[in-house]
Amino acid sequence: MLNKVVIVGVGLIGGSFARALKHAGAVGTVVGVERSAASLARALELGIIDVATDDLAQALDGADLVLLAAPVAQTEAILAALLPHLQAGTVLSDAGSTKTDVVAAARRALGAKVHQFVPGHPIAGRETNGPDAAIIDLYRGKKVVLTPLAENAAADVERVAQAWRACGALIHALTPQEHDKVFASVSHLPHLLAFALVDDIAHKPHADLLFQYAASGFRDFTRIAGSSPEMWRDISLANQAALLNELDAYLSQLTQLRGMLAAGDGAAIEAVYGNAQRAREQWIATIESAEAPAAARSHP
Amino acid sequence: MLNKVVIVGVGLIGGSFARALKHAGAVGTVVGVERSAASLARALELGIIDVATDDLAQALDGADLVLLAAPVAQTEAILAALLPHLQAGTVLSDAGSTKTDVVAAARRALGAKVHQFVPGHPIAGRETNGPDAAIIDLYRGKKVVLTPLAENAAADVERVAQAWRACGALIHALTPQEHDKVFASVSHLPHLLAFALVDDIAHKPHADLLFQYAASGFRDFTRIAGSSPEMWRDISLANQAALLNELDAYLSQLTQLRGMLAAGDGAAIEAVYGNAQRAREQWIATIESAEAPAAARSHP
Repeated sequence: MLNKVVIVGVGLIGGSFARALKHAGAVGTVVGVERSAASLARALELGIIDVATDDLAQALDGADLVLLAAPVAQTEAILAALLPHLQAGTVLSDAGSTKTDVVAAARRALGAKVHQFVPGHPIAGRETNGPDAAIIDLYRGKKVVLTPLAENAAADVERVAQAWRACGALIHALTPQEHDKVFASVSHLPHLLAFALVDDIAHKPHADLLFQYAASGFRDFTRIAGSSPEMWRDISLANQAALLNELDAYLSQLTQLRGMLAAGDGAAIEAVYGNAQRAREQWIATIESAEAPAAARSHP
Repeated sequence: MLNKVVIVGVGLIGGSFARALKHAGAVGTVVGVERSAASLARALELGIIDVATDDLAQALDGADLVLLAAPVAQTEAILAALLPHLQAGTVLSDAGSTKTDVVAAARRALGAKVHQFVPGHPIAGRETNGPDAAIIDLYRGKKVVLTPLAENAAADVERVAQAWRACGALIHALTPQEHDKVFASVSHLPHLLAFALVDDIAHKPHADLLFQYAASGFRDFTRIAGSSPEMWRDISLANQAALLNELDAYLSQLTQLRGMLAAGDGAAIEAVYGNAQRAREQWIATIESAEAPAAARSHP
């Protein structure tokens, strides 16, 4: 049981964390801090937070846990603003989509107190944003990756893990570098590719004709291109090195496939498509069996 | 009202066409022809077809309309097999995803009788296949692109259009070349890209770790990589020239974006992502307003 939790950024991610903790009876008071006064007022109105404040001293006084759920590029500035008011018993964590840069920002901002910061990344999201998008079961059955620092006390890591478990999440641990490599591959690159495709089509002289015939396959493929450009610019830059590696591997793969297509090599093309189709089918079967208990709980 | 319709290939596409025509009271008898005896028997059992046969003379006798709903690579062989039994009053059409190659195949197979063939492509699909996947409203509110030949009689084109309208579809017309250019861009390229990404990841030494953290964004992005490798090999080769053009444009776009990322040019990256996000939002708004009446009918 956490007596006091502070959420910095009361949108989808922070708001859903607060809602889930409250629903589980795992928190006493939730305090919201947020750059948008309208969002802060709305979060209070919706009962996501109990207290809305811009007074960081008041917010941090006696806090057990502070979750940063703001764009990753703001991590250093937020932590620097929190530092003067940070008490010894408080654990800080975050929900950023990249971890190497967040850890570097935390080291710069917190100095010796970086041991109080346990980096994390909940693998969950929706297409909608803001306090109104926050829901109780966003994290149910989903993974939260923690990337603990050598300086972290085990009890502090466990405090963060417990909070996420109370939200129904499954805790995984990776190093920040492993984390960034993995998500460059399965998340950041697909986002870049989807943005690139839609932008490419939108710039063609006959774009209107093209969009007119785009159907459900295109809609799903480009769904992630509906995400926030600002947020994904930050993620792309924050994970630049790993993302460039993945992009180069993909460009090389596409160039090979182009060669097969130009040569009319149906067997080689089918081998690529077939391997992809089987790998995806196996992946879907794995996640469906893993998610089945959670799905049964949330969709009775 | 069509007295007799022949469906060659009683899977999702052909079966849904038959079901929709029957539901609309727009057909007397539906005859099914199919290389898989099991699928043919199942289509009969499900009431999708009234008659199952491998006797093409019997199938074509007195037929008003024949729809080819088999893989596009089989078009020429199927039309050649139908030709000896083709009567003057019968109109042939197809449901292939590419049109230039289908028209060429039809010209080779049918010769002077190609005027009886009206090429078409329903823009609808599901992830499932076979007669059991066939549903009444697959085409409701969806587009069907006809690419009529100069040789086609207007009445024959209209017979095909009427049948699709009875299924609830909206008729569009393009030339075969326009059609293939459009679908290379909004369908065939995305399929190739999705297959390529999953194959790329599946070949990495740490593929299991990567798939473990792939989430809903990856799932949607790669949904089309769950499609039939054989079918998409055929489509890729059938639309080789247009697909190569689109792939080259995309490779050039990705190479530019790679340069922005390597240079850390956040403003340029955000301009690409932002343009894509706005274009997609506008597209979604357009299709949602266009599909609203159909959606209201099918989901009361």
